[in-house]
Amino acid sequence: MEVFIEPIGRLINEFSKLPGVGRKTAQRYAYRVINMSEGEARAFADAIIGAKQRVHFCKICGNFTEGEVCEICKTRDQSVLCVVKEPKDVIALEKLHEFKGGYHVLHGVIDPMNGVTPNDIRIRELLARVQGGAVKEVIMATNADVEGDATAMYIARLLKPLGVKVTRLSRGIPNGSELEYTDDVTLSRALLERTEL
Amino acid sequence: MEVFIEPIGRLINEFSKLPGVGRKTAQRYAYRVINMSEGEARAFADAIIGAKQRVHFCKICGNFTEGEVCEICKTRDQSVLCVVKEPKDVIALEKLHEFKGGYHVLHGVIDPMNGVTPNDIRIRELLARVQGGAVKEVIMATNADVEGDATAMYIARLLKPLGVKVTRLSRGIPNGSELEYTDDVTLSRALLERTEL
Repeated sequence: MEVFIEPIGRLINEFSKLPGVGRKTAQRYAYRVINMSEGEARAFADAIIGAKQRVHFCKICGNFTEGEVCEICKTRDQSVLCVVKEPKDVIALEKLHEFKGGYHVLHGVIDPMNGVTPNDIRIRELLARVQGGAVKEVIMATNADVEGDATAMYIARLLKPLGVKVTRLSRGIPNGSELEYTDDVTLSRALLERTEL
Repeated sequence: MEVFIEPIGRLINEFSKLPGVGRKTAQRYAYRVINMSEGEARAFADAIIGAKQRVHFCKICGNFTEGEVCEICKTRDQSVLCVVKEPKDVIALEKLHEFKGGYHVLHGVIDPMNGVTPNDIRIRELLARVQGGAVKEVIMATNADVEGDATAMYIARLLKPLGVKVTRLSRGIPNGSELEYTDDVTLSRALLERTEL
């Protein structure tokens, strides 16, 4: 006899597909659902279907949107573009409420080891936007890892001949951290790119 | 402007209701759903609705079941009953593939501090089962905490006059642990309840 009855086993399987969720956690989630009211469970299921059906990618910047073009592309200054790997990076930056420009979501970074070439991410679309002439600065905000850096460098090389300013997020010691526990690469970078007081 | 568009925000809210899931984790889950195919998202939503609609409590033992009476009550020896707090405790014991008797799920433990009295959990139903006469032994398998112990004691006092044997899971040092790191209560209990070799 199976330990779980079928509908519970099925729900545990579904929860197990979520990132970082193992069997044990999926079980806890499934028990929570079974303890929900019928209305709550229905709302949960509807939210999943709704998110899947109503969320699309903005045809300009590639960010999540419900319509054809996202609110940021519609309403904000597009002379400064921030280039990021994924839609969730847009969220991270938007939470600061500091950047007032537009975005360009690459949907990936160049990663030859995993078969991702420049043609597989939205570099062509970025070039077209810059060639349109309205963009003055492109801020590369890819992750601070090998692929992120390589992608930033590659795109910078393509953009510079177009006469646009290309910048990158600064590197250094994260706020609140102690020198003693900062890794060597970060520390030597912070020394190299030290700023004047 | 909201940082998240509505359907994503709504899904994040729903995921946040799961136990131990904060905003950040809920976001990761929501992104995963958005990256699913339409069919996958549909299957996920269906599993939630299905689990909620098809899972009931067995009218005999209180465990999860699809029908009126669960497979364990239908097919297994009911002369030995294992009394547990919640359906998930049945799963924990069933995974051992050792216990061949029946179960009785209390759906809680006596906890006066939180307003749970003996009348709020399935003690009456347990008494009725034992009074039926077929039960020879009741194994108390509530958690090894204050409420679990108190509930086990309370039920044992009610059951003994009925002439049924009442036992409890043994206490002691968990397998693989070192004496040095075993807490005092566990260690003194292990000493007190030492077994002959």
